Amino acid sequence: METARDGQTLNLTQENSAAVVLARMNNCSDPRFRQIMTSIVTHLHAAVKEIRPTQEEWFDAIQFLTRTGQLCTDTRQEWILLSDVLGVSMLVDAINHQKPSGATETTVLGPFYVSGAPERALGENICLDGKGMPVVVSGRVTGIDGRPIAGAALDVWMTNEDGFYDVQQPGIQPNMNLRGLFHAGDDGRYWFRAAKPRFYPIPGDGTVGSLLERSGRHNFRPGHLHFIVSAPGYESITTHYFDRKSPYLDSDAVFGVKETLIIDFEDHNDPKRAATLGVDNPFATVTMNFVLVPSPSQTR
Amino acid sequence: METARDGQTLNLTQENSAAVVLARMNNCSDPRFRQIMTSIVTHLHAAVKEIRPTQEEWFDAIQFLTRTGQLCTDTRQEWILLSDVLGVSMLVDAINHQKPSGATETTVLGPFYVSGAPERALGENICLDGKGMPVVVSGRVTGIDGRPIAGAALDVWMTNEDGFYDVQQPGIQPNMNLRGLFHAGDDGRYWFRAAKPRFYPIPGDGTVGSLLERSGRHNFRPGHLHFIVSAPGYESITTHYFDRKSPYLDSDAVFGVKETLIIDFEDHNDPKRAATLGVDNPFATVTMNFVLVPSPSQTR
Repeated sequence: METARDGQTLNLTQENSAAVVLARMNNCSDPRFRQIMTSIVTHLHAAVKEIRPTQEEWFDAIQFLTRTGQLCTDTRQEWILLSDVLGVSMLVDAINHQKPSGATETTVLGPFYVSGAPERALGENICLDGKGMPVVVSGRVTGIDGRPIAGAALDVWMTNEDGFYDVQQPGIQPNMNLRGLFHAGDDGRYWFRAAKPRFYPIPGDGTVGSLLERSGRHNFRPGHLHFIVSAPGYESITTHYFDRKSPYLDSDAVFGVKETLIIDFEDHNDPKRAATLGVDNPFATVTMNFVLVPSPSQTR
Repeated sequence: METARDGQTLNLTQENSAAVVLARMNNCSDPRFRQIMTSIVTHLHAAVKEIRPTQEEWFDAIQFLTRTGQLCTDTRQEWILLSDVLGVSMLVDAINHQKPSGATETTVLGPFYVSGAPERALGENICLDGKGMPVVVSGRVTGIDGRPIAGAALDVWMTNEDGFYDVQQPGIQPNMNLRGLFHAGDDGRYWFRAAKPRFYPIPGDGTVGSLLERSGRHNFRPGHLHFIVSAPGYESITTHYFDRKSPYLDSDAVFGVKETLIIDFEDHNDPKRAATLGVDNPFATVTMNFVLVPSPSQTR
């Protein structure tokens, strides 16, 4: 028997509830897990006591949480989306990626990353459905010392002109549309062709959509390109670059925007240059540079 | 554009994260929902900042939450079980059922209630598999004024001798084994035959089981019978009665035990009385009384 048999410690009450639950963890042999659960149980009970849910509200919450898991599939992760729209994903990112000034800032991975994007040669076009305004993306990957990082890997993904990732439209979009893995040259430079990013809604037909609607919030994200940039000896970064002219830049549904990640796209009407670059006219160009920090284990 | 375009309000940081998220609810037209979300977001961000999860820990949590929903079926509700083992279900019960002294106290519904249990005549035996020690349950349903409540409904459910509810063992246990709906007589009295309740494990093969294991907690509940007792003009109660001799009375995995709900079973070795009552010898008897409070709408 773990606790004394008196009414004070046996009965869980509004006054002792978190303490009664945490007292049961006396045999927990994992200090980190105990620390995590202590924080969760303490805040969970405090929130319940503030909210004072009716039994019906409690059951609504149970159903919401249940359905959020049941919506998850191989290509949809409603729990990550919920973490995103509640600002938790960006908070976890902020906690884990405190970059020195000058380094490229990070932001959420989002639920639509797919590992194993096809390796592409520099300059290749990842827009396989031909939709949207062509854009030529180029830039440079350097260390925080300004030196180029030869062969840095850039894993890129984005939505198509209709506002969907390929995995959201299997059979409609070409497989691996607007995804690709590039490697910078010896000078740290890269370039590829894609489509100009467009604002788009995150999925609104699930629990996250209903939560945003009840909250009086929209479910749009400003136009952006996703990148994971990595190189041996450097900390990998997961980030986006956002189009400064996109709507929703100030109200991104997942709080991913940072001032330093907003960038200018330049529009061009120049048939000759378009032909040289291998894109239809008109087109846009954009420069996206990345500054990486050495891994803690490196002595640079 | 909803917020000013300066770095302070645009970038979500460790300092402003909860405030940035809550500022997005300015257009929420449901004050109660806004109050609930304010409490949840505030405590959620505070907990994350205390815990400082690594990206891997965050993803472990996402997977835990996802799997908890995916384990739910028509006959299994892992989210209710999680609410139960974290003491939340009992806290919500405490908030909603502050009974006057003398009234029967309430406790969790648990995940194994099934509505539509068959109507039984007083005295009927709900133990359809014949397992376990026979028990004769009897008692009285009264108002807090002591007057009998004629025709009060008693919806009863319990595990069989092997520690499983019928819905956990379809095809093994008879359908509706150890479930029944009884109605008290004009004197408020009821009786029925069942099996003596036994301690049993809540499901340990899911996310809740793994959480209990990592917490150094067992997953047992002390032996009990579940009741929902209701009558027109009275507040319905959801409660259990617990066997005072059962192990785990002080460490119920779901925190359901209250001092006033612990009760003595009397064991008998009396073939003649057993025959009169229609049970095998030896057998047990127990008295379980219920005291209901008038509904707020009643002028009693």
